[in-house]
Amino acid sequence: MEKLLIIKIGGNIVDDDAALATFLSDFANLDGHKILVHGGGKLATRMAAQLNIPQQMVDGRRITDAETLKIVTMVYAGFINKNIVAALQARNCNALGLCGADGDVILAHKRNHPVMDYGFVGDVDTINAKLITTLLEQHISLVFAPITHDQQGQLLNTNADTIAQEIAKGMSPYYETTLVYSFEKAGVLLDAEDDSTVIPSINPEHYQQLKQQQKIFAGMIPKLDNAFAAIRSGVSKVIIGKAEQLPALVEGKTGTSIIA
Amino acid sequence: MEKLLIIKIGGNIVDDDAALATFLSDFANLDGHKILVHGGGKLATRMAAQLNIPQQMVDGRRITDAETLKIVTMVYAGFINKNIVAALQARNCNALGLCGADGDVILAHKRNHPVMDYGFVGDVDTINAKLITTLLEQHISLVFAPITHDQQGQLLNTNADTIAQEIAKGMSPYYETTLVYSFEKAGVLLDAEDDSTVIPSINPEHYQQLKQQQKIFAGMIPKLDNAFAAIRSGVSKVIIGKAEQLPALVEGKTGTSIIA
Repeated sequence: MEKLLIIKIGGNIVDDDAALATFLSDFANLDGHKILVHGGGKLATRMAAQLNIPQQMVDGRRITDAETLKIVTMVYAGFINKNIVAALQARNCNALGLCGADGDVILAHKRNHPVMDYGFVGDVDTINAKLITTLLEQHISLVFAPITHDQQGQLLNTNADTIAQEIAKGMSPYYETTLVYSFEKAGVLLDAEDDSTVIPSINPEHYQQLKQQQKIFAGMIPKLDNAFAAIRSGVSKVIIGKAEQLPALVEGKTGTSIIA
Repeated sequence: MEKLLIIKIGGNIVDDDAALATFLSDFANLDGHKILVHGGGKLATRMAAQLNIPQQMVDGRRITDAETLKIVTMVYAGFINKNIVAALQARNCNALGLCGADGDVILAHKRNHPVMDYGFVGDVDTINAKLITTLLEQHISLVFAPITHDQQGQLLNTNADTIAQEIAKGMSPYYETTLVYSFEKAGVLLDAEDDSTVIPSINPEHYQQLKQQQKIFAGMIPKLDNAFAAIRSGVSKVIIGKAEQLPALVEGKTGTSIIA
């Protein structure tokens, strides 16, 4: 089986031009088949403010109304995605950007929640492994924006961590897949403010224990839930760590390794 | 040789939700390999006004400064491109959206004009016929936004008529290519306000004659120059006409046919 690297970069890296440039150089230098999934960063929030579009928050979560969907589609699938692709092309990495509607590559449905309406938010149903394989075989590196579609003409805002996990899960039958969540922290930390408290590896029992002791800070829980879901679904390796250490991270020499 | 249809839609169609929906249904129903190239429409201009970004015009031409490039990248490659792709997916047409940086599909250079600086405007050098062929062979219909790149990391705003012509030219060695410029008018008109004055076919001599008599209105000249350039470069057929008559137009039953 050939290897496939799937790397998610967090919004804080996308927002920082210098950090992003370094990351993209490191990504371009990685050997073999590779996929980049990017989040949104603060540009969409800034754009909404400039356009006087109020952001609705319910229980700390942003609601994607029609105007917000328009902005995230422009910013994520347009500005951020195409600038990353152009920057990778300049680094001799033949990148191609996709959102979920392109080639029906990520099919989703509008979230159906019993109590609250998140608006145009998508939960992933399937990924198109055939199209992804065809493009990877052309030595093309794929760059995914966190926008999906429902096959009924509706674009949907979708969590980038989840997209990375779903692609990793969907590609695992065909490739030995490593999923890397890279962001501004050194990995899963016992003290969110101290990179030296990184946990080198974590298994489900250890994770439950740390959660019960409230030693996992809230923002990490969805990421870790995604990471364990990926491992359970056949992904070979999941690693969480610092974007600026990408070469060491993909080899599991730094960051936190998720263990089945 | 297999056939390939390349269809450009004008900005006025993109701006009109009902006209666009009808057009996309017609496009989805066309048989065989097909490519759609879309222009920008007025959304980018509206967005620039809302964001208080002044539009610089020199001799009636818009200058693409850095802020304008950001907006056209968001609007053309993000909002318009992805909404068209999602709408085609809903019509059982497996569409995939690209800008020129994606897979290095349209390589361009920043326009180098002896007198004036158009800003981040690209003139096309080459198209990647191999990637386009690979995708068409997967029964994918391609949707191009009018944004290219220079392989040095710079995105460039590029005329959509020219992109359609360059793709048609670049694909002609491999496909029997028909290029259709579809917009709000019935074709090349003797009276710009009267659709009944459409010229059914036009050759270079006839074109020169009409230009000298000032019977071709100014806005049509770049389109016709592109059309004749396409025919000279090996494109089988070039047809100009009304977007709402797409099925008849691609068969040459209406509109203006460009003759070598």
